[in-house]
Amino acid sequence: MLAIRWYGKRDLRLEEVREPSIKPGFIKIKVKACGVCGTDLNEYLNGPIFIPTKEPHPLTGKTAPVTIGHEFAGEVVEIGAGVKGFEVGDRVAVFPVIHCGECYFCKRGMENLCVNFGVTGLSEDGGFAEYALVRPYQAYKIPESVSFEEGALVEPLSVGVRAVKKAQLMPGDSVVIIGAGPIGLCVLLVAKASGAGKIIVVEPSKARRKKAEEIGADITINPSGKSVEEVIEEIRGETELGADVSFECVGLNETFKVAVESIRKGGKAVALGVFKCLTSFDAKGLVVGEKSIIGSVSHSADDFCRGISLVASKRVDVRPLITSKVKLEEIVEKGFEELIKNRDKHVKILAAEI
Amino acid sequence: MLAIRWYGKRDLRLEEVREPSIKPGFIKIKVKACGVCGTDLNEYLNGPIFIPTKEPHPLTGKTAPVTIGHEFAGEVVEIGAGVKGFEVGDRVAVFPVIHCGECYFCKRGMENLCVNFGVTGLSEDGGFAEYALVRPYQAYKIPESVSFEEGALVEPLSVGVRAVKKAQLMPGDSVVIIGAGPIGLCVLLVAKASGAGKIIVVEPSKARRKKAEEIGADITINPSGKSVEEVIEEIRGETELGADVSFECVGLNETFKVAVESIRKGGKAVALGVFKCLTSFDAKGLVVGEKSIIGSVSHSADDFCRGISLVASKRVDVRPLITSKVKLEEIVEKGFEELIKNRDKHVKILAAEI
Ligand SMILES: [Zn+2]
Ligand SMILES: [Zn+2]
Ligand SMILES: [Zn+2]
Ligand SMILES: [Zn+2]
Repeated sequence: MLAIRWYGKRDLRLEEVREPSIKPGFIKIKVKACGVCGTDLNEYLNGPIFIPTKEPHPLTGKTAPVTIGHEFAGEVVEIGAGVKGFEVGDRVAVFPVIHCGECYFCKRGMENLCVNFGVTGLSEDGGFAEYALVRPYQAYKIPESVSFEEGALVEPLSVGVRAVKKAQLMPGDSVVIIGAGPIGLCVLLVAKASGAGKIIVVEPSKARRKKAEEIGADITINPSGKSVEEVIEEIRGETELGADVSFECVGLNETFKVAVESIRKGGKAVALGVFKCLTSFDAKGLVVGEKSIIGSVSHSADDFCRGISLVASKRVDVRPLITSKVKLEEIVEKGFEELIKNRDKHVKILAAEI
Repeated sequence: MLAIRWYGKRDLRLEEVREPSIKPGFIKIKVKACGVCGTDLNEYLNGPIFIPTKEPHPLTGKTAPVTIGHEFAGEVVEIGAGVKGFEVGDRVAVFPVIHCGECYFCKRGMENLCVNFGVTGLSEDGGFAEYALVRPYQAYKIPESVSFEEGALVEPLSVGVRAVKKAQLMPGDSVVIIGAGPIGLCVLLVAKASGAGKIIVVEPSKARRKKAEEIGADITINPSGKSVEEVIEEIRGETELGADVSFECVGLNETFKVAVESIRKGGKAVALGVFKCLTSFDAKGLVVGEKSIIGSVSHSADDFCRGISLVASKRVDVRPLITSKVKLEEIVEKGFEELIKNRDKHVKILAAEI
């Protein structure tokens, strides 16, 4: 079968590989749609980051090369010995997290913090292939009304679900989203569906601001050419005394400052961005303003289930996030390379049957 | 009557002043016990900070000189026109917060964030006097079983109640308290009463570590002569993968780092310390470790009620926090000056009938 294999930085290869044969305790899926994630792009440009290259992953035993892709959905084609609850033909979205079930965090229901955390499509072969093997706890049935393409979007959507859950968003809360990439837009969709009041998006790319407006932002702010203080003032001017909740989806010192200082006293800043260095901030303002800064990373099975529920109930429409669909064979050139060249014009590029 | 009046930095005067006469909507209290707070000391050493000196306070109309003292309890001696629900002889602890009831925050039940926030004993005459006037919403009845001295301790205890509420402490949570001053020790009492598991206290003063052990700390760590990293390692060694919750009660860059890095992934750091400058921290660790940093300031009426409940039900014994009792006339010398000279040996010094 065809698969996209990560060999190293800037080295993704379309290869003919052996179709995986079913194993006990696994189910085999015919992949129908798989999205390119910022994490995948980061492995391509700057990897290895999560992909194991020296030590095999403790749960999968794998090292590179691996078939990448962790945002996927497909049809069950074979069921391994000992697996119950699935039938051939089931339509499923894949929860890509692999966890040990035994560590401190797994025992306490925090599988996204598992000390042996892994991801199908990074720590083992994933979704940019014709077939993939996944564990039963990774396969969630989706109804006929949810397309495979929508199913592939459940994974990034669940990152937004987690962030909104972490914020304990309340009906009518004003929301600032900093960064309208795929994650920022997923946060927007979930916040909107969860009763957010005014939604403000800060994003330099015009195309992404337009997309944010299309899917429900009330106000978009272009920070280009403005100081951090001006952006904060603009947000505060659009809310009564600052926003109730902010979501930092970028990971820079400046955007972190906007996230913490554009919220009102008692407000919450949820941090999802990929930070690279020490960040300085006004701890005095945090204490006397009784603010909270809340880290949110990845997603749990619960978040994933809620993601499916939002899509299946039509409370959230993820389709506008799909900006391009290409064939599996084309995903390196028309997916990865296209995102490098024209990142601002895209949200999600899928490999799908077209 | 006698009163301790703040005139300026290092200028507290014991004066004979006119006894306040009852006003409509107020109750008059014979003060029975009043504690010296770190805030009072700060006004004495570095003030004015909260005390209005130029603009009158928006709710009280007062400027300095003011009678200080906001941690007090006493007996109702007179009731102003229009006040219901009190009788002469009622024993009350005073919730010193003054709020407008009309601003954004008051409307939403966040009176501790009121934009016109004031404090009896800073924004108007307070408890270091023979008599004080307070609003009915500031007076909380205490049963016979709670002494006036314990009543005076309810105020700092409520700061601990708020911090523990903000942490959403769960049964068995391991707790690190950084700084065993009055606030750190109040956090300790409330955390212990709220089902905390192992309690670790980091404090350089030997006397305060001893006090922490006396009131329930399982482990105390002396950070003197150790690097921040060593202290963090020591805490992590005493917990499984880091503490579940930390409470930062100091307000320095180093102690903030300990608070954030000594907790496990998914843990919470509650910040109560009085910070003076920008603080740098590891935002990447916050996000990928899915930690939260939660500011906690002052207390609400709800916190105060819970403080009374903890003391009245004997779930918390605040008496060990009282390290000295002196007469009102002596409080500048034997309270304020004594705390400056021997701060580490004391927790709470009260002016009381002795
Ligand atoms: Zn992803
Ligand atoms: Zn685990
Ligand atoms: Zn106080
Ligand atoms: Zn107010």
